[in-house]
Amino acid sequence: MNLYTIDCVLQYKINASTNMLFQIQAAPHPEQSILNEHLEFHPSVTWHEFSDATHQNRHLRFNLEPCDVFKVHYTATVQKQACIDPSQFKELEIANLPDEVLPYLLASRYCDSEKLVGMATRTFEDMPKGYARIKAIEQWIYMQIQYESGSSDENTLASDVLIQRAGVCRDFAHLGIAICRALGIPARMVVGYAHIENFAPDFHAIFEVYLDGGWVLFDATRLANPNALIRIATGIDASDVAFATYYGDIELIEMQPKIFKAEQSAA
Amino acid sequence: MNLYTIDCVLQYKINASTNMLFQIQAAPHPEQSILNEHLEFHPSVTWHEFSDATHQNRHLRFNLEPCDVFKVHYTATVQKQACIDPSQFKELEIANLPDEVLPYLLASRYCDSEKLVGMATRTFEDMPKGYARIKAIEQWIYMQIQYESGSSDENTLASDVLIQRAGVCRDFAHLGIAICRALGIPARMVVGYAHIENFAPDFHAIFEVYLDGGWVLFDATRLANPNALIRIATGIDASDVAFATYYGDIELIEMQPKIFKAEQSAA
Amino acid sequence: MNLYTIDCVLQYKINASTNMLFQIQAAPHPEQSILNEHLEFHPSVTWHEFSDATHQNRHLRFNLEPCDVFKVHYTATVQKQACIDPSQFKELEIANLPDEVLPYLLASRYCDSEKLVGMATRTFEDMPKGYARIKAIEQWIYMQIQYESGSSDENTLASDVLIQRAGVCRDFAHLGIAICRALGIPARMVVGYAHIENFAPDFHAIFEVYLDGGWVLFDATRLANPNALIRIATGIDASDVAFATYYGDIELIEMQPKIFKAEQSAA
Amino acid sequence: MNLYTIDCVLQYKINASTNMLFQIQAAPHPEQSILNEHLEFHPSVTWHEFSDATHQNRHLRFNLEPCDVFKVHYTATVQKQACIDPSQFKELEIANLPDEVLPYLLASRYCDSEKLVGMATRTFEDMPKGYARIKAIEQWIYMQIQYESGSSDENTLASDVLIQRAGVCRDFAHLGIAICRALGIPARMVVGYAHIENFAPDFHAIFEVYLDGGWVLFDATRLANPNALIRIATGIDASDVAFATYYGDIELIEMQPKIFKAEQSAA
Repeated sequence: MNLYTIDCVLQYKINASTNMLFQIQAAPHPEQSILNEHLEFHPSVTWHEFSDATHQNRHLRFNLEPCDVFKVHYTATVQKQACIDPSQFKELEIANLPDEVLPYLLASRYCDSEKLVGMATRTFEDMPKGYARIKAIEQWIYMQIQYESGSSDENTLASDVLIQRAGVCRDFAHLGIAICRALGIPARMVVGYAHIENFAPDFHAIFEVYLDGGWVLFDATRLANPNALIRIATGIDASDVAFATYYGDIELIEMQPKIFKAEQSAA
Repeated sequence: MNLYTIDCVLQYKINASTNMLFQIQAAPHPEQSILNEHLEFHPSVTWHEFSDATHQNRHLRFNLEPCDVFKVHYTATVQKQACIDPSQFKELEIANLPDEVLPYLLASRYCDSEKLVGMATRTFEDMPKGYARIKAIEQWIYMQIQYESGSSDENTLASDVLIQRAGVCRDFAHLGIAICRALGIPARMVVGYAHIENFAPDFHAIFEVYLDGGWVLFDATRLANPNALIRIATGIDASDVAFATYYGDIELIEMQPKIFKAEQSAA
Repeated sequence: MNLYTIDCVLQYKINASTNMLFQIQAAPHPEQSILNEHLEFHPSVTWHEFSDATHQNRHLRFNLEPCDVFKVHYTATVQKQACIDPSQFKELEIANLPDEVLPYLLASRYCDSEKLVGMATRTFEDMPKGYARIKAIEQWIYMQIQYESGSSDENTLASDVLIQRAGVCRDFAHLGIAICRALGIPARMVVGYAHIENFAPDFHAIFEVYLDGGWVLFDATRLANPNALIRIATGIDASDVAFATYYGDIELIEMQPKIFKAEQSAA
Repeated sequence: MNLYTIDCVLQYKINASTNMLFQIQAAPHPEQSILNEHLEFHPSVTWHEFSDATHQNRHLRFNLEPCDVFKVHYTATVQKQACIDPSQFKELEIANLPDEVLPYLLASRYCDSEKLVGMATRTFEDMPKGYARIKAIEQWIYMQIQYESGSSDENTLASDVLIQRAGVCRDFAHLGIAICRALGIPARMVVGYAHIENFAPDFHAIFEVYLDGGWVLFDATRLANPNALIRIATGIDASDVAFATYYGDIELIEMQPKIFKAEQSAA
């Protein structure tokens, strides 16, 4: 059994009335079962949860009044299912793609795939299509781009990552997505909880590619094992999956989105 | 009664096998009733229709083999309902917006609202909030931007329209959307059939803004009366609402998306 | 007699060894005579002056070692000549331009005139050519762009100014230059000392256009009278005319580039 | 003796009156002596030659009236001097650079070095400074960027080359220049005649870096031996060194800028 315990603490200073949105809860998804979860706010707030029509991401929403410390505490126990081995998955002709994956072919705010068509074609066109080609894209990004905190910001596009040759996990994912789309392969972003050695706890972003067999996760940073990621949200790009979106005036004080592999109970 | 007849002909040369998507049918929408509609393809194709989860836009999809002339013919009779007078509608605080309109606050591929915050704030912040302010935005765009065929292309962003100070209907709409979002007002794109004097028949794009009272249409080109537009599709920006998307090799030969105000039957 | 007194104080904190370049001295130029000038550095430095081949701008250069306060004090008395009335100056066909003004037709780092061809042509092509047209450009910029400190930075291009619709004097000048070049009219940047009511003392940047009669100054900010500006430097754009360029680590503490109209001596 | 014969033919169709500028003649330069040269225009034109103050490039200028074929024929015999072996040249601290090379540290229209500081620093900062580091930059570009005709245009910046990972010789040179400037090393563009195996005759662009010992040529395309290039022009970037600049309406029909290593006469 693959059991994971999530223990996520977020603390903010609230300077002015703020409308707040969070995506921090484990997602409903065939590959993971939420065995239990618990959500606490201090001071308490009147919150509600809603999900969006396209990705069924879970959004928490509430208003905050000014206070020195506002704390969110989310805990959950999640069981991961073994996923199918994708290594023999083929790429699909666009004509054979299911209707609902077509939007993941289009350029989006952060994944300016239209600018990368020449580069992607020159670099990857001659490779045999299929899972191994996506692995080659993942590897190419890993070799070309340096992981560096602070090297990018919330306006960094996939093409910018190629200029600066550095980024954080979301930038690696955006570049992977943009290259795939430039080649006519549906791709999208996934964020979740992942344990990464030697890094402070943080949400992790990776990318997911649609092959003949279904969506397959890839991590061009090579920091985490995609099979051990507890999915929070799925989206066209980072626009859809921010863990926090706010309209007001707040400051992040602490972010501790921890995940542990649970002890296996002796049977 | 406000009855409209749509008669839309599209003709293409198909150079190679192509997977084709159309959004040309009248949308299901409270303000319009489709009394009848008819769709013809020549040569005939095996098509299917699907709708997306977020906007319920109607997508036609099929494969095409090479041929000299492929013709689509869509006809429909649509009745428009009188819409409520929005002139007293207020703007809503973000905290009071319904959950489902929040995505329309975010920057998107074509509406780079994050770049327009300074300009939008300086220009429109001091005006009284509400319908009249959106009308002022619409008017400002109309005065600043010149309508000029061929002045933009499929990669033109809202910020580019401010540089070149010219565009076509989708550019006017993108700019309107981006300014609204920069001000914290939900806005999105609507395309449809509209009769425009002295213009060759074409699909028309305008923008829609969420106020206290619902979504309200605006047309910064002032070419069409929004109340006489038959809606085809609604989207975050032009990414969602292209009338044709194709993967293959085709050439547009003829585009005649005509709309007529139907004769009122004597009663 | 038009006599001006310049009294310019600059103070820096020097954090690490720095190679420093200044352009703060009045330029040799037919329209102004330097009656006297004096330059003081505290602590003293070994400096030299050189001029560049194209614009004969005066560059001061020296090394600085760390210190809490490094002070530059430049004083001068400069007499301005009356300039010819340019109001009847015509524009020249490019074929009739002198060889040495041709570089001022080209796009440059800050004046991305190639992006503004469509806008400039649409907006100004139908106006009668000559001085009055440049005045119309100056006026158009004045009406369209808001003067706002802090609205731009050292990477702001002319096209960015059209997006944000705000800038400081160098942005107004860049936009004027870029529009002129987009129309095939040589234009360049001039910086100098100018007295501006209600503003803290600062260097001022304006633009200069080549007409049939010579170079003519324009100020799209309308803050200063070009005829009362004491020229420091002339350049393709801001790249050439920075008052301070440094390679090291310094902080500006005080900037007081003052100019006074000298008392006329009774004769 | 290193003797080269240049035989350059350019043919244009002239559609409308055009003011024409050429930079096609061998440059005056310590490393090359022009033994003889000849210039022919058909139909004949009244031309003059001028040189710019900064680079002493030779500019031909004249007017053209409409004609079906306008032909320029330039021939020259040029002797190259052996250049000093630069392999032990060091990089200079900026404080020790001569005044006249300082402009080659600044970002310019095509060399947007300010965007490349992060990348350049991360990639090359830890290498020992000097000739070998510039060779490493040259090699890195050669490995990263694909030479591909048509992959770029006259608006392609150094940062665009990093996005598209392809370019032609001027793009390779712009990238080399931009990386050097981002590291605080003066760099500029040189164009000239070079024989390149398996390529149609064309002008060649490479870059030149200032080290302790003087300017040294580098060719990141590795197509030509810099020591066998006959220099035509030197500049900040491609803005300064276009072989043809025109104001009017012309079409290039033929471009044959040939260069041959001359037979050595038996003595």
